[in-house]
Amino acid sequence: MPQLRKDPVIGRWVIISSERAKRPNYALKKSDSSRPGPCPFCAGNEEATPPEIAAYRPDGSRPNAPGWTLRVVPNKFPALMIEGELGRRGDGVYDLMNGVGAHEVIIETPKHESNIGSLSEAEFEDLLWAYRDRVLDLNKDKRFRYILIFKNQGAEAGATLEHTHSQLIALPIVPRNVVEELKGALEYYKYKERCVYCDIVTQEIEDRGRLVSENEHFLVICPFAPRFPFETWILPKKHSPFFEHASKQEYLDLSRALRETLVRLNRALNDPPFNYIIHSNPLREPENGHYHWHIEIMPKLAQVAGFEWGSGFYINPVTPEDSAISLREIAL
Amino acid sequence: MPQLRKDPVIGRWVIISSERAKRPNYALKKSDSSRPGPCPFCAGNEEATPPEIAAYRPDGSRPNAPGWTLRVVPNKFPALMIEGELGRRGDGVYDLMNGVGAHEVIIETPKHESNIGSLSEAEFEDLLWAYRDRVLDLNKDKRFRYILIFKNQGAEAGATLEHTHSQLIALPIVPRNVVEELKGALEYYKYKERCVYCDIVTQEIEDRGRLVSENEHFLVICPFAPRFPFETWILPKKHSPFFEHASKQEYLDLSRALRETLVRLNRALNDPPFNYIIHSNPLREPENGHYHWHIEIMPKLAQVAGFEWGSGFYINPVTPEDSAISLREIAL
Repeated sequence: MPQLRKDPVIGRWVIISSERAKRPNYALKKSDSSRPGPCPFCAGNEEATPPEIAAYRPDGSRPNAPGWTLRVVPNKFPALMIEGELGRRGDGVYDLMNGVGAHEVIIETPKHESNIGSLSEAEFEDLLWAYRDRVLDLNKDKRFRYILIFKNQGAEAGATLEHTHSQLIALPIVPRNVVEELKGALEYYKYKERCVYCDIVTQEIEDRGRLVSENEHFLVICPFAPRFPFETWILPKKHSPFFEHASKQEYLDLSRALRETLVRLNRALNDPPFNYIIHSNPLREPENGHYHWHIEIMPKLAQVAGFEWGSGFYINPVTPEDSAISLREIAL
Repeated sequence: MPQLRKDPVIGRWVIISSERAKRPNYALKKSDSSRPGPCPFCAGNEEATPPEIAAYRPDGSRPNAPGWTLRVVPNKFPALMIEGELGRRGDGVYDLMNGVGAHEVIIETPKHESNIGSLSEAEFEDLLWAYRDRVLDLNKDKRFRYILIFKNQGAEAGATLEHTHSQLIALPIVPRNVVEELKGALEYYKYKERCVYCDIVTQEIEDRGRLVSENEHFLVICPFAPRFPFETWILPKKHSPFFEHASKQEYLDLSRALRETLVRLNRALNDPPFNYIIHSNPLREPENGHYHWHIEIMPKLAQVAGFEWGSGFYINPVTPEDSAISLREIAL
């Protein structure tokens, strides 16, 4: 059983999961996503994954068989286990609990595509609906407090399988960065009685220098203080703490904004490895005026970040104003 | 002039430094530390670096000429500029200041060694004294609040030059991870009236399961909640907030503990890329009972960390108990 362990000083929870060491390309020196053998995410190879949790099957085909356009399966090498109680306990100065949670894979297409940027607008829209459907389903499980939805594109960004896919982790704790965002946003709200992200949206629309694109419901910007070159955020213009509460029209606009932004990054940076993460409010809390869900996209370029992930301190050689110009200028 | 910019939500300061993009191997796709041309860090090539700030010259040789055993020079591609005022200012919702600070390189040996593990115990001791000397010197500059001392070993850990070297960045702000550590340690101190790190030292000596080694003044452990496989910490047994206040005997013991630990990591993991960071108290504060300086060593193995550095949430497939066994078993 994996464990969730808490750093006694900084309060950061970490999953210690030795199951994960059995993954296809987990190696201590090198990762290689072009492993031999059939791809477990391709249509026709459904038996290579654990039985599906959900799938979009426009032709009404039966589960765990071809015919799907998008498929959600448990991670075969899960970081957390779905069964069991939390078992919160101490060990001297330390705190830990059982590694209970969900770890799912969202297979974005039945075709063997290695780049999400090649998906159609309709496929992007389905992907967002799948994220939402899974959040609404897992939201019912009272053990979970947060759902982290993320994508690793490319081996350098942590993908161990080439076939394009996203991941979801449902957690009994709220990750530290989210706690920090909630706290910072609440402090600003108490001081100003406004949402800090709403103020960012207003200022960026007015300034335009860090603006990549906008549509009716979303703004795409290179943030003012980016950790990484070409870091890009997508923010809803309308205030809402919860990704899963967006409207149909908003998901449509978001699928367009997300697809366009990834295509821009692909063209500007020659198909870079990247991660994106959906930042949303913890589960089952009431609506609030201070937190504002959004997506952060982080291309992983070169080895510009050496000590950064250990120190929490970042040096970024590319200004967001420069990266915004590059991204804006991409012809779509 | 580089800028220090603050994320308006999370309060994280980031250096935006376009000068850095001119570094030898900064490239958007790939880093390669075996670039052609003479190594600027080798004895005889002193003119290839900016004039030295300090050097250990047992033969009394003149500055910027061969004869040194250790040499400190300004980073040729500094993330921060040493001249100028802080110029704190706002831009709407955002805060920024001039990127004022020191960025120095400590060349650990005149020989072209690519691995710090090949240095002698005496060279390690000199290296620690050099760190201390630089902190005491920069401490006089009232603009600086924190000095970050770190090492990137290997291109995958962010080293752009092969010749083994450490770096130092003096900052007008305290990095977020240090702020968090100070806050967490103070909270524990207020609650328990004890230092949390002192309690960790006591518990780890008693438990022994995560202990790698110890000597009279230092403890080497794999921490309870490590972010990365084989993450290893070196803690002084005696409470002290400041790295630079250690005694001669403590630096001797630390040079042994650090060298031994890096040799263990090299042998256990086949010369892995890694970063180490010295965590010390912010400058010019009085002694305190809650913060406890230490060194954190983070091997960079495979692509196990994809989304982690963006989310602040870590999945680690290797338990610290297992990595401690592997490291303990290495014959020295």
